[in-house]
Amino acid sequence: MLSLPLARPALAQSTPLRIEQVADGFRVPWSVGFLPGGDMLVTERAGRLWRVAPDGKRQRITGVPEVAARGQGGLLDVVVARDFSRTGAIFLSYAKAQASGGAGTALAVARLDGTKLVNPRRIFEMMPGSSGGRHFGGRIVEARDGTLFLTIGERGDRPSAQDLTRENGSVIRVARDGRIPPDNPFLNSPGTRPAIWSYGHRNPQGAALDGQGRLWLCEHGAQGGDEVNLIEKGANYGWPVISYGRHYSGAKIGEGTSKAGMKQPAFYWDPSIAPSGLAILGQGRFPGWQGAMLVGSLKFDHIAVLAPGAKRQITRIETPETIRVRDVREGPDGAIWFLSEGNGALYRITSG
Amino acid sequence: MLSLPLARPALAQSTPLRIEQVADGFRVPWSVGFLPGGDMLVTERAGRLWRVAPDGKRQRITGVPEVAARGQGGLLDVVVARDFSRTGAIFLSYAKAQASGGAGTALAVARLDGTKLVNPRRIFEMMPGSSGGRHFGGRIVEARDGTLFLTIGERGDRPSAQDLTRENGSVIRVARDGRIPPDNPFLNSPGTRPAIWSYGHRNPQGAALDGQGRLWLCEHGAQGGDEVNLIEKGANYGWPVISYGRHYSGAKIGEGTSKAGMKQPAFYWDPSIAPSGLAILGQGRFPGWQGAMLVGSLKFDHIAVLAPGAKRQITRIETPETIRVRDVREGPDGAIWFLSEGNGALYRITSG
Repeated sequence: MLSLPLARPALAQSTPLRIEQVADGFRVPWSVGFLPGGDMLVTERAGRLWRVAPDGKRQRITGVPEVAARGQGGLLDVVVARDFSRTGAIFLSYAKAQASGGAGTALAVARLDGTKLVNPRRIFEMMPGSSGGRHFGGRIVEARDGTLFLTIGERGDRPSAQDLTRENGSVIRVARDGRIPPDNPFLNSPGTRPAIWSYGHRNPQGAALDGQGRLWLCEHGAQGGDEVNLIEKGANYGWPVISYGRHYSGAKIGEGTSKAGMKQPAFYWDPSIAPSGLAILGQGRFPGWQGAMLVGSLKFDHIAVLAPGAKRQITRIETPETIRVRDVREGPDGAIWFLSEGNGALYRITSG
Repeated sequence: MLSLPLARPALAQSTPLRIEQVADGFRVPWSVGFLPGGDMLVTERAGRLWRVAPDGKRQRITGVPEVAARGQGGLLDVVVARDFSRTGAIFLSYAKAQASGGAGTALAVARLDGTKLVNPRRIFEMMPGSSGGRHFGGRIVEARDGTLFLTIGERGDRPSAQDLTRENGSVIRVARDGRIPPDNPFLNSPGTRPAIWSYGHRNPQGAALDGQGRLWLCEHGAQGGDEVNLIEKGANYGWPVISYGRHYSGAKIGEGTSKAGMKQPAFYWDPSIAPSGLAILGQGRFPGWQGAMLVGSLKFDHIAVLAPGAKRQITRIETPETIRVRDVREGPDGAIWFLSEGNGALYRITSG
């Protein structure tokens, strides 16, 4: 017998999955966050924020910052602070109108009091934004040290992703009060934007911490170049100099697929799936899936399941009712939650 | 700095590739083989075999066995025997009409004398075939020991791929004279087909030996389940009990993605690319690509390039003129040769 050097994947879908619709009637929902006690927050891109009870009933939250709801922009992510029970803090990302007539990805913190946002403070705004309606990025992650990561797309202006004097195509990192953390990588580089943590991104619309507290992104590439990246401080992820994708015209992008000084993706899809929403599972309801990375597909209406470290796609979760899976999260209950943009519904996946 | 545990891919596209059309005017070409001296053989699915000079001029070869050119069937693969200079032997696979009215994948050996096939002998025929027009498989590989592997699809009859009393969905192995080699795995199992070498395949349309003489296949899966497999003697590759794909209706296939006693693919594509044609590069014209696995895509008209061992797709070769890449080979000149089915052309890829 020949020997097969390739191990059986460590993870397997050992038990059947149950997908239930928890709430519907949302119009282009973008993100779901989880409050202590079981309520959830759901953003709609047009600018509405909802508080959703476990039975699916919802109340509109007032006091949301004004958003520029044009193209792919609007109200984007919502994240509930880890210290919410004490502070009531939530974080919102959104496209903010600018005096130029364009819009920039912005980050705000506010206190949620029942169904009212109190004292919203904008703690970051990409400047200048752009009149283009594409590639806002917009995912927020609260790091273990309490700083905030925000992903920003290149707004359709490709070279800007390599330009450290602009925040396009970057992950930025700020403190909750908007200050630049003293250990940001480009703080002392003259002319660069001090909030930048990593750059060379195209349009990252999924972000999550793994069990070691490391930041991972999924990002829309061009055709055949959707990526999962492990984010290192100060690193360059190569767009648009290197990419596994090609322009939708079929034209080649940049210089190839690798270059010294530019990071390789941990995983890429060719063909593309149009990824949005990234969750990394802890020890939850899915035995054998600890550390698995879940990525929603806007194109095929499924959730891709990658092995820990994104070495390999191990399966997909079919989500037959959905139209554009926009957000994927592990809830505090250990279930997988996701939003379907096109039919405006919130779903919960459990096993067994 | 966080550490990135994922290595840069070992292979990179270091030099630009040049793609040139060598011959055209073929009608649904399926396979290309290489004769000593620089001429090539090209099959057309309808049943014609051509001898093609390096300048693209061609002559039709007479004496080809009659083929059942229906659906996906017809004249399929052509392989030039390693001892051709001494024996003139070539191998052909094809759909052969059967008395039942159906057709079965068959394998013949003949002597090529200029533009005449002399003394063609059928050395294998799957029996019974099927009236269905799908999933003939059909790739031939001459193993290092001189035995012949032939891939056979499950003919659209899924359970048959697990049925050792039928050759559907298997790789078979026979000697050049048609005898069953004494070390075939099921030779002594009553009721099983003695030619079977491995089983549980869906529709393998690419096959090649690596540098160690191991057999690799690429096979069409269902949606999201195209596979590359390293073939072990007697092993079960799981179709349709396990698969990473789903039926085109979206329905689940079988029992999941893994099961004891069934092999995992070395690589799979999700989304699918519709693979046909597999070449594994030796030490040729592509520095850094030694051992790389090239797989043609019938769907996206490119050639996927996988790292040795199929651990990862490292890039794709864009083939902008093509319509359905049907066959991919490394030529004796070290170049990559491929056939585009839809526009009936033979191409050659060199570097630099």
